[in-house]
Amino acid sequence: MNVSIVGATGYGGLELIRLLKNHPNMKIASLHTSSKFDRKISENHTHLLHEDFVLEEVNPEKIADKSDIVFLATPSGVSAELVSAFSQVNVKVIDLSGDLRLKTPGEYEKWYKKTAAPQKIIDSAVYGLSEWNAQQIKEANIIANPGCYPTATLLGLAPLFIEGLATEDVIIDAKSGVSGAGKSPSEMTHFSDMNENFKIYKVHEHQHIPEIEQQLSTWSQNMQPITFTTHLVPMTRGIMATMYVKVNKRISTQELYDLYQTSYNSHPFVRIQRSGQFPVTKQVYGSNFCDIGMAYDERTGKVTIVSVIDNLVKGAAGQAIQNANIMMGLDETAGLSTIPIYP
Amino acid sequence: MNVSIVGATGYGGLELIRLLKNHPNMKIASLHTSSKFDRKISENHTHLLHEDFVLEEVNPEKIADKSDIVFLATPSGVSAELVSAFSQVNVKVIDLSGDLRLKTPGEYEKWYKKTAAPQKIIDSAVYGLSEWNAQQIKEANIIANPGCYPTATLLGLAPLFIEGLATEDVIIDAKSGVSGAGKSPSEMTHFSDMNENFKIYKVHEHQHIPEIEQQLSTWSQNMQPITFTTHLVPMTRGIMATMYVKVNKRISTQELYDLYQTSYNSHPFVRIQRSGQFPVTKQVYGSNFCDIGMAYDERTGKVTIVSVIDNLVKGAAGQAIQNANIMMGLDETAGLSTIPIYP
Amino acid sequence: MNVSIVGATGYGGLELIRLLKNHPNMKIASLHTSSKFDRKISENHTHLLHEDFVLEEVNPEKIADKSDIVFLATPSGVSAELVSAFSQVNVKVIDLSGDLRLKTPGEYEKWYKKTAAPQKIIDSAVYGLSEWNAQQIKEANIIANPGCYPTATLLGLAPLFIEGLATEDVIIDAKSGVSGAGKSPSEMTHFSDMNENFKIYKVHEHQHIPEIEQQLSTWSQNMQPITFTTHLVPMTRGIMATMYVKVNKRISTQELYDLYQTSYNSHPFVRIQRSGQFPVTKQVYGSNFCDIGMAYDERTGKVTIVSVIDNLVKGAAGQAIQNANIMMGLDETAGLSTIPIYP
Amino acid sequence: MNVSIVGATGYGGLELIRLLKNHPNMKIASLHTSSKFDRKISENHTHLLHEDFVLEEVNPEKIADKSDIVFLATPSGVSAELVSAFSQVNVKVIDLSGDLRLKTPGEYEKWYKKTAAPQKIIDSAVYGLSEWNAQQIKEANIIANPGCYPTATLLGLAPLFIEGLATEDVIIDAKSGVSGAGKSPSEMTHFSDMNENFKIYKVHEHQHIPEIEQQLSTWSQNMQPITFTTHLVPMTRGIMATMYVKVNKRISTQELYDLYQTSYNSHPFVRIQRSGQFPVTKQVYGSNFCDIGMAYDERTGKVTIVSVIDNLVKGAAGQAIQNANIMMGLDETAGLSTIPIYP
Repeated sequence: MNVSIVGATGYGGLELIRLLKNHPNMKIASLHTSSKFDRKISENHTHLLHEDFVLEEVNPEKIADKSDIVFLATPSGVSAELVSAFSQVNVKVIDLSGDLRLKTPGEYEKWYKKTAAPQKIIDSAVYGLSEWNAQQIKEANIIANPGCYPTATLLGLAPLFIEGLATEDVIIDAKSGVSGAGKSPSEMTHFSDMNENFKIYKVHEHQHIPEIEQQLSTWSQNMQPITFTTHLVPMTRGIMATMYVKVNKRISTQELYDLYQTSYNSHPFVRIQRSGQFPVTKQVYGSNFCDIGMAYDERTGKVTIVSVIDNLVKGAAGQAIQNANIMMGLDETAGLSTIPIYP
Repeated sequence: MNVSIVGATGYGGLELIRLLKNHPNMKIASLHTSSKFDRKISENHTHLLHEDFVLEEVNPEKIADKSDIVFLATPSGVSAELVSAFSQVNVKVIDLSGDLRLKTPGEYEKWYKKTAAPQKIIDSAVYGLSEWNAQQIKEANIIANPGCYPTATLLGLAPLFIEGLATEDVIIDAKSGVSGAGKSPSEMTHFSDMNENFKIYKVHEHQHIPEIEQQLSTWSQNMQPITFTTHLVPMTRGIMATMYVKVNKRISTQELYDLYQTSYNSHPFVRIQRSGQFPVTKQVYGSNFCDIGMAYDERTGKVTIVSVIDNLVKGAAGQAIQNANIMMGLDETAGLSTIPIYP
Repeated sequence: MNVSIVGATGYGGLELIRLLKNHPNMKIASLHTSSKFDRKISENHTHLLHEDFVLEEVNPEKIADKSDIVFLATPSGVSAELVSAFSQVNVKVIDLSGDLRLKTPGEYEKWYKKTAAPQKIIDSAVYGLSEWNAQQIKEANIIANPGCYPTATLLGLAPLFIEGLATEDVIIDAKSGVSGAGKSPSEMTHFSDMNENFKIYKVHEHQHIPEIEQQLSTWSQNMQPITFTTHLVPMTRGIMATMYVKVNKRISTQELYDLYQTSYNSHPFVRIQRSGQFPVTKQVYGSNFCDIGMAYDERTGKVTIVSVIDNLVKGAAGQAIQNANIMMGLDETAGLSTIPIYP
Repeated sequence: MNVSIVGATGYGGLELIRLLKNHPNMKIASLHTSSKFDRKISENHTHLLHEDFVLEEVNPEKIADKSDIVFLATPSGVSAELVSAFSQVNVKVIDLSGDLRLKTPGEYEKWYKKTAAPQKIIDSAVYGLSEWNAQQIKEANIIANPGCYPTATLLGLAPLFIEGLATEDVIIDAKSGVSGAGKSPSEMTHFSDMNENFKIYKVHEHQHIPEIEQQLSTWSQNMQPITFTTHLVPMTRGIMATMYVKVNKRISTQELYDLYQTSYNSHPFVRIQRSGQFPVTKQVYGSNFCDIGMAYDERTGKVTIVSVIDNLVKGAAGQAIQNANIMMGLDETAGLSTIPIYP
C-alpha cells in the first residue's frame, strides 16, 4: 500500500515519516511541500540523513496515480483548498488540520477566522476519533483527523458522557509541550523565553473548544458549554488534560475504574492507570497511547479525570495512521505498537 | 536589626540568605542546621563562595541573644517543636513550614499525618498573608508564613470572595516548578524522570487544601469545599494557579479588572496584568511579585483567574521577609524591590 | 531466538526492552533483577503498562535453559560476578557494564576502585565496538559492550588513528545527557540542581579514559595518553564528543570527508555529515546512529571531529543488540532501523 | 549619576535595567530603541510591569544632556555608527557590541563581515576587561565591553599567560546558554529544536577568536593561534569554558591554585574554587562572578582550566556596570554585590 504526505517538513509530516518507516503494510511513495521542493528532505532535517526522500511539488493527479492514501499535514486554511482537489481524484485523504472537523462552516469561520471548506467536502469528512468512530472511519474516503487537545480530552470524557453521568460544569485545564505550537520560530516559542517558563494562552478562545463540544454533544444532548484553557509547558512533546466534572450521582473511584476499563477494554491504545495512580506525560512519549487516571472526590462530589498523550503521535500522526489502518482494513495497531521512550 | 535562619541549607533557607544579603535594615547574625554544622555553608553550596557564614547548631537562647527575628525554614514536623522552644525566649518567629497555619490541630493531623503543635502556640500564630493580614502581622510575635500554592491562590481569589461574588464551585488547577518539592533527591524529582515530563500529584490530597479553605472561609461564610490539584512542571521555579470560579452575577472583564486594580492598588507586590493579557511564570522569576490576569467567559458564565508567583520568593522566603518588614515597622518592600530575572 | 535481561529496571535494561519489542528475530524470554522481583515491571514503570513481564530472580541455569543470549545491564562490580556464573552455562553473554572491557585487571582496579573479574573471563570477552570488531564479535561467547563515551569517541577517531594521521595531543571534550548518570536519584542529578546548569565532573579521572586508550593503542602503536573531560548537559539523552587532534600532515577538509566516507561506507549506523555541517545530539535521539562531522583548521593545523550518539542506544542497549545480531549471524540492523525522534 | 541605555529591549539592555534598578549611585535617565519607541517598555516586557520607563528615540545630544554615561546594548554594525555620533557629545560610552574590540579594522571585517568603525574611534576605545585593564578604564571615555566568551576565557587563561607558562596549543571548548544567541527568534533557538539538544556551531569561525587572541598577545608575545569552539546548551543563561593548556614546565595542582589565588586576590568578582572542585554554571546565575577551577594532569602534562560566568551579567551587562563604576571612580562592586540565584 502506498502513501503520500503533503506538508512533509512540518512536525506532523516528519512524525508521519518516522512512524511509517516501520509500518509493515504501508510504504511512503512521495513527500510533498508547497515550497523548497526538488531537494532531499535530509538537507535541512539531519535526523533523516541516509533517507533518500526528495521533496516534490503538490500535484493531486500524480499523487493519486501512485498512492492509495494521502496525508495532509498542512496548516489550517491550506488543507481546505487541497482537499477539494484531492476529492476529484482517486485517493483517500486523511487531513491533520482543523479544516474539516467542524460541521458548521460558520463555527469554523468564527473560531479559525478563515474561510471554511465547501459544505459538501465537510459533509463527506468523517471525524477520526479512532476509538469511538471506527465504523464510520472504515467507510470514509476523507478523514478529519482530530486535534491534539480534543483527542486527549474526548478520550478522557467519553465514558462519563456516553453513560450520561456528566452534562454540565465541565472544566478542562489542558497543558501541552511546545511542539504543539508548530515549527515556525516565534517569540512565544523562543527557547530563552519559553525555557523555565509556564504560559497560559488563548484563554476562552482556543479553536479546539467547538471541536470538543461538537463531539460531546453527539454523546449527550444536554451538553453545556465547556470551560477550556490551554497552557504551554517547557517541554517538547506531551499533553495532559486535567478534567473536572460534576457528576449527577455519587460514584466510587472503583466504579469509575470499572466503567473506564470496560469502555476501553478492546482498544489497545487506551490504557487505564492502576487505581490510585495518575499518568504523567512521559509514559506515552513517542507512542500512540492515551493513558487515563481518575478519582472521585468525596469532599466536592466532583470527578477528576487525567488523560495524557504524545501530541505528535496520538494527537496527530499516530492517530492518522491508526485511522488509515482502520480505513484499509488492516490491524488497527499496524506500525504503531512501540514502547514509549523512557527516560 | 539582626536575624537568624534555622534550616539554612534547604531551598527556603538559601533563598532567605540571598534576599537578606541586600536588605538595608537586616543583617544575618547566624545560620543554623540540625546536622553538618561547624562548617562553612559555602563548602557544599558553591554559589555562596566568598560568603563566610559558618553553620551552627540550633540553640534558641543563644539565637535570641543575638537576633531580633528567627526564620524557621525547617520541614513540617520540625518547626512545631522548635517554635515551642523559641516561644520561651525573646525573639520573633517567622515559620515557613505548614506547622502553624491550620488553626485546628485535628485538621493538621489529618492532612499532614503528623502531630500538631500545641494549641496555645497555634493560637498565637498569625497567618502571614501579607497583603490581607497586615494589621495582625504588625502585632504578632509568631508568624505562620503561608504556603506557596495558598499564596498564589488566595491572592488570586481574595477580591472575588471578599466582594461576595464567589462562594461555590471553585476549581484551582495549580502548577509548580520542581524546587517546590524541596532539596532532597527522590525518584519524582530525578532529572531524567522529571525532564520532558509533566506530572500531576497528590490529587484531592494536598495539605494546602485546608489552608486555602481556612482563609477563604474568613472572607466568605458560605465557602464550599474547593477542588484543588497540583502538578509539577519541568522547570525549577514558578507557580501558576489557574482558577475557575462560578460567579453569582454577570460581570464584564472590565469590571473584574477594576475590582482587582482597586483591591491591590496600595499593594506594591501584586501587579494586575493589562486587560487581555495573562501572566507567565517567568515574569516574576526571582522576585516577590504576584501577577494576576483574569477574564469573564460569556459562554459559560465563569471567571478564569490566573495568578503567578516565584514559589521560593513570594511563596516562601520573600513573603517571610515582607512579613518581617511589616512586623518591625519597616517599609514593606525593604530588601525586596528587585526586578525579576528575564530571560 | 530468546533473550533474557538481567538488570531489567535500570535505564540500560529498560531500553533493551523497548528496542527488543520490535525485533523481528528476538523475543524477550525473561526479565531479572536482584531485588523487588515477583512483581510486574509495569507497576513501577508505567510506560510499560499493558506489557505483561514479571520480574524474576537471577538464576543462570534457568536463564540458560530458555534463552540463547543474556544481556547483563547491571552495574560495574555486579557484572563481574554474574558473568563468571553465566560462563558455566550454555548462553551467550553481552555485558553492558565496564567490568570486562579493560584487559589488564590492574587498570580496572585503578580506575574503577573495585575488584576485577577473573583474568580468564576477561580474556575470553571481546570488546564489542560493532563497526570495527565485527569479525571477533561473530565468534565470541562473551561481549564487553563499549561504554557510551568510548563509543562516540572511538567511532570519531578511528579513521584518523588507523590511517596513522594522529598519534598525540588528542583532546576529547565530551558532553552527556543526564541519563548517563543512571537511575538512582542523587544530588548531582536532582532536577532543581541540574536544570539550567552545565556541569563538569571527574576531571582527569573518568573510568572511560583507559577504555579509549586501550582501543586506540590497537590502532596505533605510538598512541599517547589522551586528555578527556566529561560534562553533564541539562537534557536526558545524547552525547557529543568534540575532539581536537593534531595531525601529522596538512589535510583538507574534503580529504577528511573522503577518508571518513570510505571508512564508514559499509556501516549503516555511522552517518557522515554533509561537509560544512556538524551534527547535533537530537538528530540521533532514540536511534542507533552515530553521526560525525569534521573540519581541518588552517589557522592551527588541528582537526576538529564532532561525534554524536544517543547514550542509551548506540552508547548502550542499541549497540548491545547490534552485537547480538552480529554474533547470531543476523542482519546487523535487525530491530534497529528506526528513524530518530524529532523534535 | 544618570545613565541612558540604547538598545534597551534586547537581552543586554534588559539586564542593564535589572541591575541598575538597585545601583546606589546610578539612575536610569532614559531608555532608547531604534524602533517601537514612544511606548512603555512594560507593554511587551511584562516582567517590568510597574516600571514606568517609556522608550525613546536615539538622539545623542539629548542623551548627553541628561546622562553621564550611555550604554550601547546594540548589535554589531549598529554600535559602530552610534559611537561616532556619541563621540561628538559630552558623554562616556560603554559599547556592549563587538564593534570596538578589534584594533585592526581588517580583522573586524574578516570575522564580522561588516564595515569597521573609523580607526580613530577604535583607537580611542579601551578594552574593558575589568580585572586586567582597570588603569586604562579609569581614564577612558569609550569602553569596548568584552564579549561573553572572551570574558570567561581570558579570566581563565590570564595567570598562565602573564606568568609565561603557556604559549601554544591552547584549546578552548566553550559552551553557552541560549540567551547568548540573542532575542530574535530563529530556527536554531526555537524551543522544540533546542530543547533536549546540544549543538556545536561556528566551528573555527567564531568572531570571538580574534578578540581572545588580541588580548592574549598583549600578555605573551609568542602567542600561537588558538583552537576555539562554541556550543549551545539547552539552558538560558551561563557559559562554561573548558580550557586545555600545554604548560612549559611541570606544575602541581597546588601551585596552580596558589598562582590563581594570588592573581585574583584583590578582585572580588573572580572566585577561585576550592582545590579538587570545579565550578558549574548555576553557581554564578544572575551574578557578576567568574568562578574558576583547575587541575594539572600528570598523565598528559596538560592543565585543564574551567571558568564559568553568567553570559548576560559578567559576560555583558554586569561587566559593563563594573566598568562604569571603575570609570566614575566608584566602588567596583556598586550595584553588583548580589548572591547568585540558586536553585
